[in-house]
Amino acid sequence: MTPEQAYETLTQRMKEIALLGNTAGILGWDQEVYMPGAGAAYRAEQLSLLAGMCHQKFTDPQVGELIAQAESSKALTGDPLSDSAVNLREWRRSYDRSKKLPQKLVEEMARVSSNAQVEWVEARKANQFSRFQPWLEKIIGLTQEQAKCYGYTAHPYDALLEDYEPGLTTAKLDELFPPLKKNLAELVAKITSSKKQPDLSILKRACPVDKQVAFCRLLAEKIGFDFEKGRIDVSAHPFTTGLGPCDTRITTRFEENNFENAFFSTLHEAGHGIYDQNLPGDAHYGTPRASAVSLGIHESQSRMWENLVGRSLAFWRYFFPELKKSFPGIFDDLSVETFYFAINHSAPSFIRTESDEVTYNLHVCLRYDIETALISGSLKAADIPAAWNNAMKQYLGVVPPTDSVGCLQDVHWSHGSFGYFPTYTLGNLYSAQFFAKANEDLGGLEGKFEKGDFKSLKKWLNEKIHSQGQRYRATDLCKVATGKDLSSQPFLDHLNKKFGALYGF
Amino acid sequence: MTPEQAYETLTQRMKEIALLGNTAGILGWDQEVYMPGAGAAYRAEQLSLLAGMCHQKFTDPQVGELIAQAESSKALTGDPLSDSAVNLREWRRSYDRSKKLPQKLVEEMARVSSNAQVEWVEARKANQFSRFQPWLEKIIGLTQEQAKCYGYTAHPYDALLEDYEPGLTTAKLDELFPPLKKNLAELVAKITSSKKQPDLSILKRACPVDKQVAFCRLLAEKIGFDFEKGRIDVSAHPFTTGLGPCDTRITTRFEENNFENAFFSTLHEAGHGIYDQNLPGDAHYGTPRASAVSLGIHESQSRMWENLVGRSLAFWRYFFPELKKSFPGIFDDLSVETFYFAINHSAPSFIRTESDEVTYNLHVCLRYDIETALISGSLKAADIPAAWNNAMKQYLGVVPPTDSVGCLQDVHWSHGSFGYFPTYTLGNLYSAQFFAKANEDLGGLEGKFEKGDFKSLKKWLNEKIHSQGQRYRATDLCKVATGKDLSSQPFLDHLNKKFGALYGF
Repeated sequence: MTPEQAYETLTQRMKEIALLGNTAGILGWDQEVYMPGAGAAYRAEQLSLLAGMCHQKFTDPQVGELIAQAESSKALTGDPLSDSAVNLREWRRSYDRSKKLPQKLVEEMARVSSNAQVEWVEARKANQFSRFQPWLEKIIGLTQEQAKCYGYTAHPYDALLEDYEPGLTTAKLDELFPPLKKNLAELVAKITSSKKQPDLSILKRACPVDKQVAFCRLLAEKIGFDFEKGRIDVSAHPFTTGLGPCDTRITTRFEENNFENAFFSTLHEAGHGIYDQNLPGDAHYGTPRASAVSLGIHESQSRMWENLVGRSLAFWRYFFPELKKSFPGIFDDLSVETFYFAINHSAPSFIRTESDEVTYNLHVCLRYDIETALISGSLKAADIPAAWNNAMKQYLGVVPPTDSVGCLQDVHWSHGSFGYFPTYTLGNLYSAQFFAKANEDLGGLEGKFEKGDFKSLKKWLNEKIHSQGQRYRATDLCKVATGKDLSSQPFLDHLNKKFGALYGF
Repeated sequence: MTPEQAYETLTQRMKEIALLGNTAGILGWDQEVYMPGAGAAYRAEQLSLLAGMCHQKFTDPQVGELIAQAESSKALTGDPLSDSAVNLREWRRSYDRSKKLPQKLVEEMARVSSNAQVEWVEARKANQFSRFQPWLEKIIGLTQEQAKCYGYTAHPYDALLEDYEPGLTTAKLDELFPPLKKNLAELVAKITSSKKQPDLSILKRACPVDKQVAFCRLLAEKIGFDFEKGRIDVSAHPFTTGLGPCDTRITTRFEENNFENAFFSTLHEAGHGIYDQNLPGDAHYGTPRASAVSLGIHESQSRMWENLVGRSLAFWRYFFPELKKSFPGIFDDLSVETFYFAINHSAPSFIRTESDEVTYNLHVCLRYDIETALISGSLKAADIPAAWNNAMKQYLGVVPPTDSVGCLQDVHWSHGSFGYFPTYTLGNLYSAQFFAKANEDLGGLEGKFEKGDFKSLKKWLNEKIHSQGQRYRATDLCKVATGKDLSSQPFLDHLNKKFGALYGF
């Protein structure tokens, strides 16, 4: 077999794995959106069978041989930015990584985390950290073992980050997070002490759900989500899933007295969806060349449309008349500025997922501090509640009254997902840096938004981010797209300018 | 390996095939119900991959060895009605059958029918039989070859019937159909010449779709479709699909000026759904013991609830007040008898799927005549239009003005599905025979329906039909459940009594 034939065989196999993976994707989507509750047990068996098949097909030693054969060809790997070199680089990375964990450890983690998740649900319900603690201890132990198996140089947490944001290190985060924390804490203090505060009652105005559905569809369509190649449905927790080159599905949720939730969830998920819909298409589908580059970059796309676009005054200068028309009588008494202030309310709160553009990243920094300490062994599981509450006091000036709204609020640890949280903040930082560069390249975005032109920004993103797939690692992509390494400065500049104007400081 | 171990291994493998088959089921359901149109090409690749996997797993020579090993045990096969004997009997049948077609023929049929379906769509649109004819000729040729490979004694069509109604023969159909045709033709003549005719304008009364949705859900729920383990959605063509032991989905469709379509489609599909939901559960799921016995028996369940129950006067004596309440002002001026007459209108028409309880089976008999003649070679594809129109004239007294509403109306032949049509009529015949026996066993069903008791009939069906799975072949099941061989008499008795009363003869 020539290296070219090996590469072709490998590509076919990977596309077949993608076909199966996307099949599992449909099963997962259906489970969240339409499956009758009683179907859960059988669905779990199906998903487990498909996951096992994908794993087996990918970790087959023949795959390793094919990769090695293909790598031997200069034609395939000589230009590191060629499609073949990109694919081989990423297949190599994933294949080697999949070989590093002993089967026993994988199975033990699956078993423990399955139980831990059930215990976490109960512990949170009962506000009883001690119930979750022994399971968390097991999970931390297994995670430390994973980190050892993967290997690392500076910090065991680096080995875990690799699963979520390839190439990211604690060294980089320790450079990004401190100025962020400092500036955000100052911002929180200024906002909290400001005499100018928004009218929050606006956010509770009753908006009929059927009208919210129509308006959300309009928002998603207008910013560029393609309904010919996607759909929007309802689920308990909004999510986006790409099920094929022409099938991307987003979900949202509706409450009559909380339009904000539906609108911004929709913009957020549509941002993820637009990324998926504009990855390189047919011929590459199922290969790294046509895959999203990292969780952080993915989150940058959702945050871009949710916050930098969707919570901007220019956006609402365009959409406010439409909003008034869509919800007759409900917003007629308001100026766009009053509405804009309400949807940009900021205040310290306990729950990460309900926090705002300013406070959100402090919730993440807190988790990062605790996770790195747990993985390095300098913090014990038993000490989490105290560490959590201290950090909340320090970063946000509030202390959760219970662990249920404190250290038990997130599902991630029960899954063994240590290293995931930082990608949320990375998303925010990337989004601001991309936005600033697009704004510069396109000669001012606000004027465009006010006229309902969202295509210009989408086109810039299509070209600079989406169409790149995994050609570059995330950090390199940032440099190529913006000319600079990732920094927290553009994000802080954005917040300081926007919230300074809103809250008058 | 002991025979018991072989049986266990086989069972596990078959359950795994069922897991994959049901995965394809979800993909198919999604395609009809929610998939964005652009997703079709990728979905076809996924379905083809899954079909290939299932086929490969089932036809693996190891399966043949395992079946043979298990069959050697008296403990497993001694009692022919034991679970293991039933499963082995059906696995043996399917395995042997799967080995009879050469791979080349299977692939050729897949290729030709895929093209033929596209051509059929165009030919029907253009009312141009000649466009479809060459493809149909190819399909008939391949189907004749299939019949030869499967083998038969009396008629090549017998080899094809086996795919849809195992055990059914042309000899049996040639015994059932002639008295049916004769009596139905007489009935049609009496109905057509009757002076009593229903007020058809009732069926066109505008019923808001959202109210139809709610009422259809009520109907399905009330007759016993379990929404904890199923759902109802909308699709262009109503269908039912079982996706797991606790996940059965039905679809229907709504038009404001055609409530009849939605109501009776829903009852029809709910009938299929109730069968699936009451097959033997968890431990047996994925084996023949827990599978529906045949298409004819499946259709008997849908026809039972659609026609024998849903189009009865007793049913509407119970539901009519509910209907008036659900559609305020729309049916207030009508008596239940007038409504009942309207939903039992009967008249010759061109389209099988739009025909009524009386005329439906004449459409099927016509197709049976043509199919058997095509397969035996006594009729050529080119002569179908003439044969079709002659038979329509003879059976129903009307001649379709175009082939589009004549011999081009059904998709079946473009799929190569010769032998499918008779199962529709078998369903009607089985349903009447079952209903008559249940009526006798339960001491009169009408009185129960009038009081809204549909549980008694459902329980009877659960016990006599659903819980049996494939324990008996279809013909034996009929004998066990009703004490008699299948006959067209109960069905004719039902029609003569009902339509005699309605049309006054």
